[in-house]
Amino acid sequence: MADPAKTPTAPTGAGSSTPVSPSSDGTDAPALGTDAPAPGSRISRRQLLGTAGATGLALGAAGGATGYAAARSGSADTADAAPLTSLGADTAMFHGKHQAGITTPMQASGHLIAFDLAPGAGRKEATALLRRWSAVAERLMAGESLSGDTEVARDAGPSLLTVTFGFGHSFFGRTGLEKQRPVALDPLPDFSSDHLDKARSNGDLWVQIGANDSLVAFHALRALQKEAGSAARVRWQMNGFNRSHGATARPMTTRNLMGQVDGTRNPKPSDPDFQQRIFVPEKPGGEVPVWMAGGSYAVVRRIRMLLDDWEKLSVKGQEGIIGRHKSDGAPLTGGSETTEPDLDKLGADGTLVVPINAHARITRPDQNGGAAMLRRPFSFHDGFDADGVPEAGLLFVCWQADPARGFVPVQRKLDRGDALSPFIRHEASGLFAVPGGAEKGGYVGQRLLEG
Amino acid sequence: MADPAKTPTAPTGAGSSTPVSPSSDGTDAPALGTDAPAPGSRISRRQLLGTAGATGLALGAAGGATGYAAARSGSADTADAAPLTSLGADTAMFHGKHQAGITTPMQASGHLIAFDLAPGAGRKEATALLRRWSAVAERLMAGESLSGDTEVARDAGPSLLTVTFGFGHSFFGRTGLEKQRPVALDPLPDFSSDHLDKARSNGDLWVQIGANDSLVAFHALRALQKEAGSAARVRWQMNGFNRSHGATARPMTTRNLMGQVDGTRNPKPSDPDFQQRIFVPEKPGGEVPVWMAGGSYAVVRRIRMLLDDWEKLSVKGQEGIIGRHKSDGAPLTGGSETTEPDLDKLGADGTLVVPINAHARITRPDQNGGAAMLRRPFSFHDGFDADGVPEAGLLFVCWQADPARGFVPVQRKLDRGDALSPFIRHEASGLFAVPGGAEKGGYVGQRLLEG
Repeated sequence: MADPAKTPTAPTGAGSSTPVSPSSDGTDAPALGTDAPAPGSRISRRQLLGTAGATGLALGAAGGATGYAAARSGSADTADAAPLTSLGADTAMFHGKHQAGITTPMQASGHLIAFDLAPGAGRKEATALLRRWSAVAERLMAGESLSGDTEVARDAGPSLLTVTFGFGHSFFGRTGLEKQRPVALDPLPDFSSDHLDKARSNGDLWVQIGANDSLVAFHALRALQKEAGSAARVRWQMNGFNRSHGATARPMTTRNLMGQVDGTRNPKPSDPDFQQRIFVPEKPGGEVPVWMAGGSYAVVRRIRMLLDDWEKLSVKGQEGIIGRHKSDGAPLTGGSETTEPDLDKLGADGTLVVPINAHARITRPDQNGGAAMLRRPFSFHDGFDADGVPEAGLLFVCWQADPARGFVPVQRKLDRGDALSPFIRHEASGLFAVPGGAEKGGYVGQRLLEG
Repeated sequence: MADPAKTPTAPTGAGSSTPVSPSSDGTDAPALGTDAPAPGSRISRRQLLGTAGATGLALGAAGGATGYAAARSGSADTADAAPLTSLGADTAMFHGKHQAGITTPMQASGHLIAFDLAPGAGRKEATALLRRWSAVAERLMAGESLSGDTEVARDAGPSLLTVTFGFGHSFFGRTGLEKQRPVALDPLPDFSSDHLDKARSNGDLWVQIGANDSLVAFHALRALQKEAGSAARVRWQMNGFNRSHGATARPMTTRNLMGQVDGTRNPKPSDPDFQQRIFVPEKPGGEVPVWMAGGSYAVVRRIRMLLDDWEKLSVKGQEGIIGRHKSDGAPLTGGSETTEPDLDKLGADGTLVVPINAHARITRPDQNGGAAMLRRPFSFHDGFDADGVPEAGLLFVCWQADPARGFVPVQRKLDRGDALSPFIRHEASGLFAVPGGAEKGGYVGQRLLEG
């Protein structure tokens, strides 16, 4: 139940349309690089508080992604509670055309978890589960408590918590919904460089949790796990992280554990084709099931980085593999991070400045039939193995309207000739259909489960 | 080497003595609850930036803990770099009477790592290693790059990075320094409730890393591991987290993964006996070796929480076990978090309101001959096991001038009769002698290794 003592005060921001994002901390996420003021601009703390909760409105304005708006109803009159800072009060909206956690700015803490329906559980149990899960997600994303709350998130604001639900290929057989299974969920092709652990891949149901506070994220993870009850069991679970809000003045992109600027070429909501590349249309056509309207497909890859090998290379060697300068992500042919590379440029020695197998060249949309995906990863580090080798890398999560036109062609090309391949290992893989957001009073997946 | 492009701008704060801590985000750490303004106070972003780096000066003033001051030399004239936000610019000082990471406000991200000297490595190699490690820690804590830097922390400020070095019992035999081994490092007694994994316990050398940005913390971890070279090998490593800066308006304490307010009774630098309880004196007497002047002893316990069992209890049941209200940490006998409990108070049914085996009663210094320790833990969550049980709990780290008078009597008492015992499991343990801070031009442990 809602607990008034917990309700934080987000004084004036609810509903504000000022396109200030308090989460512009070097994130990969789209609108920030273009619309948000640099985090270092001299905006007052009052201003920050005043616009807390407005995250994502810029996204809606720019790209039609209206799934984000201020959710917190003002409770500024609570006299004895100090106002939350921007980070804590930051709120993503549960209801909307799309689910949150796709175009939401990258969060500092994340959990990915997959469930399998329990033996004997079918469509009925899955329907009840999605209904319960949606109710939990809605409350927690608004910063409210649950009945029997563990209180791990108590005192904290929602901290931009997002909970995103998806369905895996196996879900449809278990629930008798095969006819509703999107063709886009057909298993990904095998890639020659895959070293996949099946036990940590796929699953009937997938949940992505992100927040700018680790306790808030853990609290949600635990609440959702408990809510699964006897209907579903944890198949696998992974933890990740990104740069903290405010740790950097860099406005646009973050770095991965290889030290590379990551996400430079992500599509932006201001791109004219952003919506059609990332989201299934409101009125899907052809083979796309109607219940996926406003949805997207998530490809999840646990990509281990072989850091000991990578770090033995010189910076010049690393830059040749990536095709960009390590310092600022600018192409080797010059300019800044956002400058277009001159792919034909030859160096003094007559060879291509951006090598033919450079990662940045191979992944370019114009080299892959226009394939574009929105990358929204978390880094991971699960400690060291017995030899002192870090179990670390990237929880790669990418979003696209059609994986066969987004992830697959790019990965196929990378698989054949990416200079980065010797330094990474794909350890797990998942592909999930993520339906559009729930309507008020509804739940995620309703159009599928009641269709 | 230092990279000018990375040097962040902390405009005016260096050396400021204003006791504003930008890290007062519900931390357990001492001075914040008393001296710092509530995080919600309307201080401007410019003010915040102006005092960035001043963290810990309040501590120095209050308790004589002068190990913290602004380290960043101003580079406000760098025209083309946006100023870092408070979180990124926050700096702990490497040099000083005490090492950083003891009274430093709790950080959002932490790593604990233990090393064993490699076979054949002795005092000479250890000396060179501590010299190298100190140089790395000094640079990274100041937000500077290293030669051959992985660049994982590039663009980010130091984000209150601390690196703290300690020596385990076994270190002294391996280096021929047995005569310098403090009596206080004698192995902790066995506790009946221990389930210790030896491979994840103790070690020759121990390093605690904390930062308010996970990439900054990982970057330091990796740099220190690499610097160990052939001199030492990783014995164990654990990752932890705390509440993010700004996620809560709660000024004083944080919560653990049981949802309990944690750290309420921590000693504060303003306590008259804070220094003598937490730190070895500048002129140690008796059995205390001179090289430990200004040092402290860290007890590290990996405490697994049996959350499935704990969460089955009612809130009332949990509160009886702890002896405090879950909502705000106030004693069951009334008041607020900082109110003294009435330990003799009887309820309507004639029984003690704070049960005789309540955790908060048993751990009280006045019930343990004045034993006091400074608790500065991280929560941990390493995923779920095959049954969906979270491998989660507390990386308990406590600091005291003498573990035999700090940790041991309290733990002995807890071992006998703590109502909390059935819900936790001590899985690993370490005890480390943490020398005072390095002097300018010196390194941590110098008085031991060159003594």
